[in-house]
Amino acid sequence: MSMKKITIFGGDNRLLKVRENLIKNGFHVDTLGLCEGDKGDMSSSQILIFPVPTTKDGINVYAPITDEKIALDSISEKITDEQLTLSCNYQFHNKKCVDYGSLDSYALLNAVPTAEGAIKIAIENTGFTLWKSRCLVIGYGRVGKVLANRLKAFGCDVTVTARKPSDLSLADTLGFNYINTEDLNYAKLDFDIIFNTVDVKVVDDEKLKNTKCSLIIDLATHYGINLEAAEKQGIKTIKASGLPSKVAPQTAAEILSKTIIHIINSYN
Amino acid sequence: MSMKKITIFGGDNRLLKVRENLIKNGFHVDTLGLCEGDKGDMSSSQILIFPVPTTKDGINVYAPITDEKIALDSISEKITDEQLTLSCNYQFHNKKCVDYGSLDSYALLNAVPTAEGAIKIAIENTGFTLWKSRCLVIGYGRVGKVLANRLKAFGCDVTVTARKPSDLSLADTLGFNYINTEDLNYAKLDFDIIFNTVDVKVVDDEKLKNTKCSLIIDLATHYGINLEAAEKQGIKTIKASGLPSKVAPQTAAEILSKTIIHIINSYN
Amino acid sequence: MSMKKITIFGGDNRLLKVRENLIKNGFHVDTLGLCEGDKGDMSSSQILIFPVPTTKDGINVYAPITDEKIALDSISEKITDEQLTLSCNYQFHNKKCVDYGSLDSYALLNAVPTAEGAIKIAIENTGFTLWKSRCLVIGYGRVGKVLANRLKAFGCDVTVTARKPSDLSLADTLGFNYINTEDLNYAKLDFDIIFNTVDVKVVDDEKLKNTKCSLIIDLATHYGINLEAAEKQGIKTIKASGLPSKVAPQTAAEILSKTIIHIINSYN
Amino acid sequence: MSMKKITIFGGDNRLLKVRENLIKNGFHVDTLGLCEGDKGDMSSSQILIFPVPTTKDGINVYAPITDEKIALDSISEKITDEQLTLSCNYQFHNKKCVDYGSLDSYALLNAVPTAEGAIKIAIENTGFTLWKSRCLVIGYGRVGKVLANRLKAFGCDVTVTARKPSDLSLADTLGFNYINTEDLNYAKLDFDIIFNTVDVKVVDDEKLKNTKCSLIIDLATHYGINLEAAEKQGIKTIKASGLPSKVAPQTAAEILSKTIIHIINSYN
Repeated sequence: MSMKKITIFGGDNRLLKVRENLIKNGFHVDTLGLCEGDKGDMSSSQILIFPVPTTKDGINVYAPITDEKIALDSISEKITDEQLTLSCNYQFHNKKCVDYGSLDSYALLNAVPTAEGAIKIAIENTGFTLWKSRCLVIGYGRVGKVLANRLKAFGCDVTVTARKPSDLSLADTLGFNYINTEDLNYAKLDFDIIFNTVDVKVVDDEKLKNTKCSLIIDLATHYGINLEAAEKQGIKTIKASGLPSKVAPQTAAEILSKTIIHIINSYN
Repeated sequence: MSMKKITIFGGDNRLLKVRENLIKNGFHVDTLGLCEGDKGDMSSSQILIFPVPTTKDGINVYAPITDEKIALDSISEKITDEQLTLSCNYQFHNKKCVDYGSLDSYALLNAVPTAEGAIKIAIENTGFTLWKSRCLVIGYGRVGKVLANRLKAFGCDVTVTARKPSDLSLADTLGFNYINTEDLNYAKLDFDIIFNTVDVKVVDDEKLKNTKCSLIIDLATHYGINLEAAEKQGIKTIKASGLPSKVAPQTAAEILSKTIIHIINSYN
Repeated sequence: MSMKKITIFGGDNRLLKVRENLIKNGFHVDTLGLCEGDKGDMSSSQILIFPVPTTKDGINVYAPITDEKIALDSISEKITDEQLTLSCNYQFHNKKCVDYGSLDSYALLNAVPTAEGAIKIAIENTGFTLWKSRCLVIGYGRVGKVLANRLKAFGCDVTVTARKPSDLSLADTLGFNYINTEDLNYAKLDFDIIFNTVDVKVVDDEKLKNTKCSLIIDLATHYGINLEAAEKQGIKTIKASGLPSKVAPQTAAEILSKTIIHIINSYN
Repeated sequence: MSMKKITIFGGDNRLLKVRENLIKNGFHVDTLGLCEGDKGDMSSSQILIFPVPTTKDGINVYAPITDEKIALDSISEKITDEQLTLSCNYQFHNKKCVDYGSLDSYALLNAVPTAEGAIKIAIENTGFTLWKSRCLVIGYGRVGKVLANRLKAFGCDVTVTARKPSDLSLADTLGFNYINTEDLNYAKLDFDIIFNTVDVKVVDDEKLKNTKCSLIIDLATHYGINLEAAEKQGIKTIKASGLPSKVAPQTAAEILSKTIIHIINSYN
């Protein structure tokens, strides 16, 4: 294989690290909107890489370092069906576009810094130890699995919720208490800390009146628990999103590099 | 709801326990082929329960206690579409037949006694401690997940194999070494103990020549590693199947009761 | 037993909580220097309780809430040999004085909030995840044991140091790497994070030049690692003391209450 | 240092392995009573090694392979004060005798195969899984610490007993339930399995009438629980001693080699 050329569009520090790693792996890399004055030439590239997330406003590529305006539409027109395009939570319409943001393996690795960040927030915002505290983890997906694992090791009494019977059984075999997510509104919410990881509203506002909970940490991307309603009940609430790049930017950049190099290799 | 009637067909000690638990839960229960001289009347029952497994020869219901011959065909003809039928690894053709043997939740709970049995066998059949031994767990499904979790706690250096990138990532986040199952034949099999949990042949016979492994435990139902070829290389091999009812018959019976009662309740 | 009377001298919020718990347990409690205007009468008390620590300047009782000057000497003169006196890291000279600060059981329970606080600080001050980081825990005493246990659960590669062969063996059986503390200066300090828990200098300043470490957290009360020398080598350093009352004041107060009530009961 | 000569007296397979390891480490080794026809000459040796245990009858060296009668008294007379003598649970009277059997570090490493063996026995002798069973570990010394750690990982609900407040606190911080050993006779013995690790009688025979326990495993060397009295109450009992050499002879031999070489080195 002859040496491939890559263009990176926009992005934050993570993409700087990705560029560095790609060069180490023998690629030619230019950038557009990542560093001041960069003028990457996408037409000569076999691979195009877009940042995390690819866009925040739906119009331009996310480019917080340079603030360059790179319109998605104008880029989209120029991408050919032969160019391998890697985007995050956005889909270009050429044949070879991979939305790496939707890959389970990418999300799982990011679950680790998310879990660590959530635990840091919990230690910081409670007057008691995690040890012997009663914790509820809503959702037993990627973040839920890693978070519950870590909390248990701290000596928390951990309850997880899930919808699939097989997830409830897995939680049971691994030593967690469990509740079906659908039964949350009928359960006694007798927890010290609630971590939410699901993107739908599973706890009625009304329900928040009766909990003894002193802290809710919402890790959902969009909308989970009604934090305003919770605050009215005197519960401290924290909306924590984008934890990987805040809590562990180096690791987040490495996970991104690893994912991107893995995709590129699997296309050869 | 008026009191329901259940007929149990055949089965081993586990089904005796299930009968006991169903009676405690308020059901009328009769049996056919489970106890000497029993003459259950299936026509008056709303629910029919078949054993684990429902049949071993494909002709008669599995009835090791009474050795009664109950032909599947003759039963099948009599089942109505209104009767809730619970079978294990066998499918009747009425509308309301549930093969509980194929339920993830059932299999997962049984993964616990399987993992405990496999560990007992490993301790018994090696001259060294599990502590500091290098273990390979082929397959990161239900049994693989629980087994790997327990081995790690013993201080083993655990490597798991899986096919799905998301499973490999999950293993990584939980602290395991990992290899893609498809790469097993190219990897160095430098392990003290190999546990196989998958039903396809993933290690070439040839490959067994170069491993330093001293014990292979095959937990697959059908066929995984070629144990004969392994024995020829001086590796001790153990085919371990049906561990739950051997290692923990009480727990196995409770898991079965729980699963059956759960299915019955979800049909009301 | 007739109802006992207790006087509490000085102290921070923890002592307010202790007072509350002692009253719940049926004691009469008055205070001196804990709340504005309090005028406890020690002469009528069977039990005297001094705060954590009993003094900071060696002259007066530690009383941060009221800033009252209560001279240790004047108190000391008045204590009778029949009064049970509970102090922390200070010794009165009557017959029945217990320095609860020196009790292993008290220190061990405080090791939990200390370990949680140290982990919070580590997450906060590194760009990488604890997961897969290499951590050195100097000292395998009370804090070292709990901290190493929690770090391992995060997926860190944990090395502990100890002096006693039995401690090194215990660390080995529980899955940690280990180095004799006395050999630290000859070992390769190839760690991402170093946690120090011992009160003597065990790492030469010179040695800090060659480590790749990016963060040192010093949990020793007095003096452990030369943090200035470390900073000169570009290593971030954090001196973290008194973590229990900072990180988990409620738990710290409960541990104190539990310890005090336990001592009082064992004197009846 | 010139090459040292060692004589090994009696012993089982472990000592054969020790001989092999000592030779690998550059020592001259002869033996007496370990192999058929061996005639080691102790007078020319700087180091004398006696087996585990050094004697079983108090008269002769333990020599199960050759059944040779080597009287302790006759050996004792010949040992000089310059000869480094390593014995196990027996003390020779020369200046340089080390009873390695009494070393904490040796005992701790042996605690691992003991714990693994005890768990194997528990799985084998119960009809239920360790998972979710309630286990009592009497004594939180070397074996107790490792055993409790492993059981917890299996998902057991583990209670430990200890006498020292600091051990009770350590157990608490590591997530175990705990009872003071002295209070055992007043506690409700509501456990499925009891593991005893202490050498004194801490449970009254009377007490065994009220427990629901179905299995007692006694790991004490001499005498702990009255197993006969327990059997009369219908409790299955197993006296399990000498587990390391039964369950993991290779590891036991390695631990012994390591200990012996460590002692020899520390005398140079």
